[in-house]
Amino acid sequence: MRPRSPIDRWGDDCMRILIAGGDGFCGWPTVLYFSERGHEVAIADNMIRRQWDVELGTQSLTPIVPVEQRVDAWQEVSGRKVKLYVGDMTDYNFVEHIFKDFQPEAVIHYAEQRSAPYSMINREHAVFTQTNNVVGTLNVLYAMKENAPECHLIKLGTMGEYGTPNIDVEEGYIRIQHKGREDVLPYPKQPGSFYHLSKVHDSHNIMFACKTWGTRATDLNQGVVYGWWTEETQRDARLYNRIDYDGVFGTALNRFCIQAAVGHDLTVYGQGGQTRGFLNILDTMQCVELAALNPADKGEFRVFNQFTEEFSILNLAQRVQRVAADMELATNIVHLPNPRVEKEQHYFHAENTNLLDLGMQPNYLTDDVIRSLIEAALRYKDRVDLNVIAPTAQWR
Amino acid sequence: MRPRSPIDRWGDDCMRILIAGGDGFCGWPTVLYFSERGHEVAIADNMIRRQWDVELGTQSLTPIVPVEQRVDAWQEVSGRKVKLYVGDMTDYNFVEHIFKDFQPEAVIHYAEQRSAPYSMINREHAVFTQTNNVVGTLNVLYAMKENAPECHLIKLGTMGEYGTPNIDVEEGYIRIQHKGREDVLPYPKQPGSFYHLSKVHDSHNIMFACKTWGTRATDLNQGVVYGWWTEETQRDARLYNRIDYDGVFGTALNRFCIQAAVGHDLTVYGQGGQTRGFLNILDTMQCVELAALNPADKGEFRVFNQFTEEFSILNLAQRVQRVAADMELATNIVHLPNPRVEKEQHYFHAENTNLLDLGMQPNYLTDDVIRSLIEAALRYKDRVDLNVIAPTAQWR
Repeated sequence: MRPRSPIDRWGDDCMRILIAGGDGFCGWPTVLYFSERGHEVAIADNMIRRQWDVELGTQSLTPIVPVEQRVDAWQEVSGRKVKLYVGDMTDYNFVEHIFKDFQPEAVIHYAEQRSAPYSMINREHAVFTQTNNVVGTLNVLYAMKENAPECHLIKLGTMGEYGTPNIDVEEGYIRIQHKGREDVLPYPKQPGSFYHLSKVHDSHNIMFACKTWGTRATDLNQGVVYGWWTEETQRDARLYNRIDYDGVFGTALNRFCIQAAVGHDLTVYGQGGQTRGFLNILDTMQCVELAALNPADKGEFRVFNQFTEEFSILNLAQRVQRVAADMELATNIVHLPNPRVEKEQHYFHAENTNLLDLGMQPNYLTDDVIRSLIEAALRYKDRVDLNVIAPTAQWR
Repeated sequence: MRPRSPIDRWGDDCMRILIAGGDGFCGWPTVLYFSERGHEVAIADNMIRRQWDVELGTQSLTPIVPVEQRVDAWQEVSGRKVKLYVGDMTDYNFVEHIFKDFQPEAVIHYAEQRSAPYSMINREHAVFTQTNNVVGTLNVLYAMKENAPECHLIKLGTMGEYGTPNIDVEEGYIRIQHKGREDVLPYPKQPGSFYHLSKVHDSHNIMFACKTWGTRATDLNQGVVYGWWTEETQRDARLYNRIDYDGVFGTALNRFCIQAAVGHDLTVYGQGGQTRGFLNILDTMQCVELAALNPADKGEFRVFNQFTEEFSILNLAQRVQRVAADMELATNIVHLPNPRVEKEQHYFHAENTNLLDLGMQPNYLTDDVIRSLIEAALRYKDRVDLNVIAPTAQWR
C-alpha cells in the first residue's frame, strides 16, 4: 500500500519522512520520535518560530539550543543522523529542491504560523498568517504532484476549524439528508480566527488536490496539545523541546501549570465554559506515526480528529488549582475579559474514532500528569517573565 | 437602515459606492448602471485584466478604450462624473486611501482574478490567484473595520463554490439534523479549481469578519454570466464592454454564440451534462442594485445565489446550434476532452429565492436573446482569433 523505495533501511517499515516545521514545538519531538524508530528523517524549517519570540519579547520556558546543535546532539546521543534543510516553504525553489534531493515518501507538514492570537494582532499579521500557511501548503501540493505523486501528505490542521456547532463534530465529512435526497459532504467549518481560517483554506485546497491530482493526504485536526516532554527530548539538555507560556503562543493547560508554578493567577478568558478537545504531546507522536504507517489511498483526502479528551477551560483551571494546592502552591482563578469573540457556554462533542481504530492508545490527563507538568515548570520558574502572560491581541 | 451621510445627493436613495474591479467585464457596466441612477460612483482598478489579455495573446472581441477615456466619455455622454482610483487592492495603503478619501457606503467588490482556467495554468497562477483574491478581500475587510464600520460589502462569489452535491444547494446555509440535534451551518463547499477555492476562502474570511467585527456583507454567489450589453454601455462606442471568447476567460454561452458567428465548432468539454446556473448580465446589474439598496444588517453575513436559470452545457450548445441554423449559420457540436476534473453527469438544483424576494425581475434566455448575441458577434467577427478558443490549461 505505502510506496516503497529500494534504498537501505534500518527496518522494513521505515521510510523517508520530511518534517516541515521540524524545529517547532510539535515538529522537533516528531523529528526525534521518527528518527529513533529507524526512519530516515529530514527537517525543513526557516526557524521563524524563534524570530517570533524575538518579535514578542518572550522566550521558551526551557533553554533551547540552535537547530544545528540540536541535530548534532541527537547524532551524538542516538547515533542517528537527521538531515536539515534551512529555508522557507513559501519559496518553491526551496521546496522543490528538497523533493528532488531527499525524495520523501511522507511529508509531515507543521510549517505554519499556528497561533490564533498572533494572527489577530493586526492586518499585517492576519495577511502574513494566511499567505504563509496557504502558499506553503500549495507549494507542498505542487511539489508532490510534480516530483513525488505517491508521497503521502500528513497535514496538521486544528479542531478549531469546526468551531462550536450545535451538532456533533464528525471527522471531516457528514452525511446530510435534505429534501428527500442525501450526500456525504465536507463538514461545515466555522473557524474563529484568521489563523483557524488559514487551516480551513488549506483543508479545502488539499481536498481539491486529492480529487484532481490523486494526491494522498491525511488532515489531522489536532486539539489543544499539553505536555512538552517526550522520551527522546529528555535524553540530553540540548534536545529539550521549547515550552510556550506567553499570551500569544502559550495554550491553556500548559499555561495554567506554569502559572501555578510561579504563583500567578490562573487566567481564564471569560466564563471558561469554552469546551475543546485536548491531547498529550505523547499522543501527537502516536497519531502522526499511525497516519504515516497507514497512508491514505491514492486520491483520498482523509480527516482524523486528533484529541483524546474534551474539557472546559474552567474545569481545567479548577483541576490545576486543586493539584497545585496538594503541592502547597496556592493559586486563584481569575476570569479575564475574553479577548476572543467566541461562545463561552455551548454544546460541544466531537468524534475521534478514526485514530483509535488504527490502534491509538490514549494517554489520559490524570492528576499525576498535571503534577508532573507543574513540577517541570518549577524547575524553570526563574525564566518566567510575568509580563508576557496576559493576552494582548484583541479579536474586536 | 442603510448608513447615510449629509453630503449632497442626486436623490434620496443615492449613496457613495466604490466599485473595485470597475474596469472589468461585470465591473464596468456596474459603474455606468449605478452612476446613471444617481449614485456617486468610484472605480478602483489596476487594469490587470487588460494585462492578462497581453499575457495570453488575446483581446476583447469588442474594441475597448483605456479606462480614463471610458470615464471621460461617460461624463461627456451622461453629464455624470465617476471617480477613478488606479492601484492594487493587495496594497493596503491604496485601499485605505480610497476609504479615507471617498468614504464609501457600499463596496461592490469584483476586483479578483475570476478565471478558473487561469488559476490552473501552473503553480504560479494558482498562488497568484489565491493570494491576490484573499489578500485583496482581507484588505477591504480591514479598511472597512478601521475606516467605515457601517459600510456594506457586496462581494462577488461564484455558484462554483458549491460544486455539484447530490442534494439541493441552498443559499449559503443549511439546516442539518444530526444524531438527534440540529443547527443551521454554512453550506458545505466543494470548489473545482484554485480560483473557485479562492472564493471559498474569501467567503469564510468575510463570515468571520461579520461575526467578529459586526461587518455588513452580502456574498453574491453568481452563476455563469451571458450577454455583454447594457443600456448604458451601448450609448457610445467608447463605453463598450469587453467581451471574452478565449479558452481562458471566455465562458460557455457567450463563447458558443461567438463560435457560431465565425463558423467555429461549438466546443463542449466532455459529455456536456455539466449543469450550472446562468444569468444575463442585465440581471447582474439588477441583483447588485437590490443588494446595495437593501443592505445586510450589522454583523450579518448574507448569501444570495445569483442566477436565473439552470442549463446543461450540451443543452445550451444545442440551442445555439438551432438558433444559428435559423440564421443560416451551420455549426457542429464537438465534444473536446474535458480539461477539467468534474462530474459530467450529476444532480444539480440550487435555490435562488433571496433575490426574487427582494423584487428581482429575471431576464430569461430566449431564442431572441441568443439571436441577438450571435448578431452582435457577427459585427466583430473579423476580430476573432480562432487560435485562442481552444482550452489550454489542464486540471490534471
